[in-house]
This record gives sequence, C-alpha cells and structure tokens, in this order.
Amino acid sequence: MDRFKLYKQLKQHSDDKIVFLVLDGLGGLPRNGKTELETASTPAMDGLVAECEAGLMVPVLRGITPGSGPGHLALFGYDPLEYAIGRGILSALGVKFPIRDGDLAARVNFASLDENGNVTDRRAGRIPDDVNRAMCEKIRSIKLEGVEFFIETEKDHRAALIFRGLGGRKFSEAVSETDPQKTGVPTLPSRPLDESKEAKETADLINRFFKEVKACLKNESPANGILLRGFALYRQIPSFSEVYGLNACAIAGYPMYRGLASLVGMEVIETESGVESQFAKLREVWDDYDFFFVHIKYTDSFGEDGNFEAKVSVIEEVDRNLSAVLELNPEVLIITADHSTPASYKAHSWHPIPLLLKSKWCRSSGIKSFGEQALLHGSLGIINSIDLMGLAMAHSGKLQKYGA
Amino acid sequence: MDRFKLYKQLKQHSDDKIVFLVLDGLGGLPRNGKTELETASTPAMDGLVAECEAGLMVPVLRGITPGSGPGHLALFGYDPLEYAIGRGILSALGVKFPIRDGDLAARVNFASLDENGNVTDRRAGRIPDDVNRAMCEKIRSIKLEGVEFFIETEKDHRAALIFRGLGGRKFSEAVSETDPQKTGVPTLPSRPLDESKEAKETADLINRFFKEVKACLKNESPANGILLRGFALYRQIPSFSEVYGLNACAIAGYPMYRGLASLVGMEVIETESGVESQFAKLREVWDDYDFFFVHIKYTDSFGEDGNFEAKVSVIEEVDRNLSAVLELNPEVLIITADHSTPASYKAHSWHPIPLLLKSKWCRSSGIKSFGEQALLHGSLGIINSIDLMGLAMAHSGKLQKYGA
Repeated sequence: MDRFKLYKQLKQHSDDKIVFLVLDGLGGLPRNGKTELETASTPAMDGLVAECEAGLMVPVLRGITPGSGPGHLALFGYDPLEYAIGRGILSALGVKFPIRDGDLAARVNFASLDENGNVTDRRAGRIPDDVNRAMCEKIRSIKLEGVEFFIETEKDHRAALIFRGLGGRKFSEAVSETDPQKTGVPTLPSRPLDESKEAKETADLINRFFKEVKACLKNESPANGILLRGFALYRQIPSFSEVYGLNACAIAGYPMYRGLASLVGMEVIETESGVESQFAKLREVWDDYDFFFVHIKYTDSFGEDGNFEAKVSVIEEVDRNLSAVLELNPEVLIITADHSTPASYKAHSWHPIPLLLKSKWCRSSGIKSFGEQALLHGSLGIINSIDLMGLAMAHSGKLQKYGA
Repeated sequence: MDRFKLYKQLKQHSDDKIVFLVLDGLGGLPRNGKTELETASTPAMDGLVAECEAGLMVPVLRGITPGSGPGHLALFGYDPLEYAIGRGILSALGVKFPIRDGDLAARVNFASLDENGNVTDRRAGRIPDDVNRAMCEKIRSIKLEGVEFFIETEKDHRAALIFRGLGGRKFSEAVSETDPQKTGVPTLPSRPLDESKEAKETADLINRFFKEVKACLKNESPANGILLRGFALYRQIPSFSEVYGLNACAIAGYPMYRGLASLVGMEVIETESGVESQFAKLREVWDDYDFFFVHIKYTDSFGEDGNFEAKVSVIEEVDRNLSAVLELNPEVLIITADHSTPASYKAHSWHPIPLLLKSKWCRSSGIKSFGEQALLHGSLGIINSIDLMGLAMAHSGKLQKYGA
C-alpha cells in the first residue's frame, strides 16, 4: 500500500480548516550562536509553540538541498524523488497555461545577439513586459509542421514555451539546453541526451524553432534571439482533492509557487505579494476553501541575498501580523518552510526546517521558543516533510482509522 | 529515483576534503552509568562537539547487529540490505586479489586431520605465514577441469580461495560450508542449498577440490587439510568515484577494512596499524585525495575482549592525537563508528553509534560532550548510517540543489 493509496482510502470530510503558512527558506544557520529565526523577536510564535506540537523536518533526504519544486511537493505530501517536476513545467503553470499530458515545456529568455550570432546580453537588457508580449506575438506567427506551440510572457525577459505534438507525436525531455550561460559565444544547438528517436526528433524541432525565431526577430532590438532552458515533459499527477479530498487554495504572490499549487490542483487566488495583503486575502476567501497554502517569499529572497537582518525582519513582520490568521480560528495552523536558506550560505540548503503545528489535539511541545535549537527537543522530533500532510489531515479529523 | 542515481545526478566537484575517522565498535553500554566513550577523558572531541552537528546513527535497522561489512557499507552510503558482501569476498579483497564479476570466493582455514579424516585442530596449530605460503604453493599444482582457481595466503592458518569459471561456467553461492566447527568429527561435504543446477555443480566442484587438496597435502603436518567457509559470489558494485565523484583513500591497518575500502574503489594506502602512525600517514597523503577513510581497529578489539578500560584508553589515545588531524584543516571531519561493540556485551551490537560532523555549515549541536547520552540531544537526532555520505557531500559543497 503506498502513501497516496492509504490517504485516499482513509480520507473523510470534516469542516475543519487547515492553514499552511510557509515562510520560504525559513531555516537558517547561527550567527553569534543564533539563527535568523532565533534572532527574530517572535512573541506570537513563541507563545504558540508551547501549546503546539513542534519539531524539525527533512525536506528530501539528509544532505539533499531541494529546489522550490521538490521542497513544496514534499510539503504537499508528494514524494519529491518520485514526482520530479522540470523547471519548464513550473514556468508554464506559473503563467496559468492549461498544460496537458505529453506537452513539452521550456523556459525562454529573450536575449540579444550580435551579427555573428554571438550572445551579447542573456536578458536582452531586461526588456519591459510589453516588449516581451510584442515579441511573443511575433513568434506566434511561426508555423511548425506536426507541432502546435504556445509562447506566453512571464515577466521582464522571461517567457514560457510549450510544444504540443499533433497526431500522436511524442517528445522527449532528454535534450540539451540552448543557453550557453555566458556572453560572447553563440547559442548552443540542442542535442539529444539519449539514443531514443523521440530525443533526436525533439532536438531537431528545437533547433528548427530557434532558426525560425531568429529569422522572425532579426530586425528587432534588443530582443533578437531566445535562449531555451529547463525542457520538461508534463505528466499529470494526482490532485490534492483526489488524494486528500481537500478543496485547497493558494495565496502566493510569485508565479513559481502559483505554478506548484496549480500543479497539485489548488485554486490560485489573485493576490499581491506581502504579509499583510496575503493575510487579508486569506480572510477574504476563508469561507470558500478548507485548505489554505499561504506562501511568504521574502524570507528566502533575503536569505539568498545573504541579508541576515532583512530575513529577521520579515520573520518579525509575519509574527506581528499573525493575529490576523489566528483570529480566523483555523482548526489546524502549520507554520513551516519548504527548505532552509541560511543568510550565511546565501542559497537553499539541506538543513532541517522549523515546524509548528497548532490544533486542539496537540501534546505540548515542551519548548518555549520557535527556533531551530529549541525545536530539536520538540514533540515531533525530526520528521520528513512528506509526513506533514498526514499530520495535518489527522489533526483536522479528516483521516479515518486504518484497519479494524 | 534511487539514492545513488540522485547522488550521481547532483554530484559536483569542490576542493573541500572529507575525513571519516572511524573508531571501530565505538558505541558502548554503561558501566556505573557511563559508557566507554563517556568514561574516556576526551577534551578535544568535547570541544569540537559544541560547534558541530552531532547525533547518533542506526547502522542497518533498529535491532540489527551488523558485521564489519554491512557496518562499513552503510557508512559509505551503500544500502547494506541491497549490497550483501559475503565473507569470502572480503578475504579475497583483503589480500588484494583482483577479483572479477562472477568469481566465487571462500575463506580457507588450514586444519589438521587424523588418519580417519577427523579434524584434530581447526587452525593447524596456527601455522606461521611461510608454512601457509608453502601449502598454497603446493595446492596451486592441482588441476580442475573447466575451472581456474587461486589460493592466497592471508595470515597464520587463513587463506583466500577464488574459483573462476572457464567458458562461461557459472557458480552459485547457495552451497554449504565444509567446516564442522568442532574437532573429532570429519569435515562436511558441501551441499547445494537450492535446486539450481549451478548450486549442485558448485557443491560438486568444492567436494572435488577438497579431495584433491587432501591428496596433495597427505604427507604434510600439521596442515594436511582445509576447511572452507563463507562462499560468496562477486558482483561488481558502483564505485565511490562513480557515485560521489570522490577520489578516496583508506588508511586502515587490517586486511578486512582494506578489502571493504577497495571493494568500493578506494585506494588502499600501506600503513601500520596505530593511531599515531595512521594520522602521520594521513598527513603524508593529504594532497593526493579528497576523501580519507581512517580506520582505528582497537576500540572494537578491546570491546570484543570485554576490556572496558583498554577500550577507554584507545578512545583517549585518539583524542590526544586528534590535533594531528585538525591541523590539516579538513573542511569536513566526521568522527563515528561502523557499529557498537560494548565491552560488557563482548561482541558487536545493534545500539546506535556516536556521530560528530564538523564543517563551517553547522548548526550548533547544543551539547557539550561527545557521549551516547548527550548525543541523543544533538542537532542531527538519530539518523541512519546510510544518510551520512549525503551529509558529508552537502557540507563539503559537493552536491548541487535537487530540482528547480
């Protein structure tokens, strides 16, 4: 019996509501003996933690640093080693493209090329969104035999590209990227990365498409070329409602997290990015769903910038506004992260993630502050992220007993 | 996606060096409330542990006592339930025999037999190595149809035997041993342990070989017979360099651990057994490798002898000399064991193993002494040995992020 089969078999309805408050990259490393979370003044969370279950989570495996995709999939209970979601798919989902089984997606960078075809700017001077949209519109005039394609503006110089096979044509994601990752050199041709017929045909298609785009944009400036990365095939995965029976929504400001949420079948709510506005949105849609994924981005951004103080201040901002969430009386409130992003490390890391779970069915955590050091002694110990959804379901009365 | 596939996909080069300092059988049981490690005066390790990540490790599964093979394979990240390495293979590797896929290896004891073929001494009076070598030389004159064989002196009365099939001939390891495990009785014939043709043919071969050896040694004394144990087929396993991209060496004084190291593709460095000499050897080869497995044997030996004080004093000797390792500034230093060997238990045991991991990317362990009791509260909690390599790779910057 696999995990999803078990959840599907045991799930039952309850009116209880579950809030996942995800502070992206929350986990940290100590500076003068204290991590970002331990440094932040968090009276609201510290008050909660004593009455809650609490602990730490390993997102994938010990030592494995997750990208946002695996980090969130694990939080949502999807084994990140089984459900590998390529970057191109996240881009397509991020622009709300209605992707289908078998589609091949990629990330597009508009770029500047010189007369010899060498890349002079990998971001085409970060063109504004309306220029991006105009370039996409031009590219849509291209015809490719046997293939339908879609190109959609993301933001600045970025767009999402989707190929759809006609007449049963199949693609492969085992093809190399065309982005040379530096300037002063030509774009790379895509090459098949395995021996399959599909990989060869897909690489040919990409190279043909690139040639057509170059011809189509040859008189444009600065965006007269494209770079393609993150080729990924879309395969449908079980939805949140199918696995858990939850009517879930996502309150996330950034396209990638919206993409991840829609991948698992959550409704994506239009929102500004920002603690106050996202919490206000939560209140607004409170009656319409029973699961709420609230994604706070800036803890991670400041971690990646190496800005310890700014990361601390985002944590404090969440803490100051937490009453807005608590006033809604969610039966289950979880405060956690998708992975750690220590400011000293300036990148995602493998270190376990802080976790707090509030419900009326909690043992007391036995600790008094919400910080990595204290959480080591919390009631949940160190669990795997993939186990969190089971706990959320149990604490909200949404799982029946297993077996007689 | 399995663990090795994941490591292979994510591995990247860094100049960081990793030291695995393995105190064989380090874990213990309390006497007057303190284990061997807790009793030992270890100011160096206690000083380290406060600034390190620390915890305990389960080598195989809770309750499973590993032999040296599974204990070390797990430390090296190889699932010991998947990669079962027979004792015969370890003997062959221990004498640096260039074993090949499909070879069948066994341990040999030279023994004394009386005129009726009954065993009178299972170790032939522990013959000196040069007598052992002379016997091996005699045995090499035997011819077996369809099979090549090799016999190599180990030490005292022990040797390694390897059969190699000619013309595609296949062996089975499902055959019984010929050692009766007591004196006054004849050696046992080998029997097939399953219904396969290979098992029957292999048992026949072993019995034929035994008869030839008996004839060949009939005028010798005291070693006029052999006992065969630990039949094992060799199957190549992924190398350390293939899985982790590491250029690894082993500084181990004892053949079995050298065999284990060479099994996973480590370079085996010639060294005397002894803390000071092994640490000096580490310094000598420091520039040539990026992973160093330093194996200290005597903690285990004294544990098996039931000599609590002597085990304590080996731990103290390592601690006194630890500065020789720290002066090399390894980016990652791990101090741990392959399994526990409590002096009171006088044998390997299943109890979790002490673990300390030093790098610049550590959360503080929150503890102040390196001992089983304190380690329960360490930052790593209780992990599986098989997870350690992932942590070592992460802390040394040798693993890329997983997924976008």
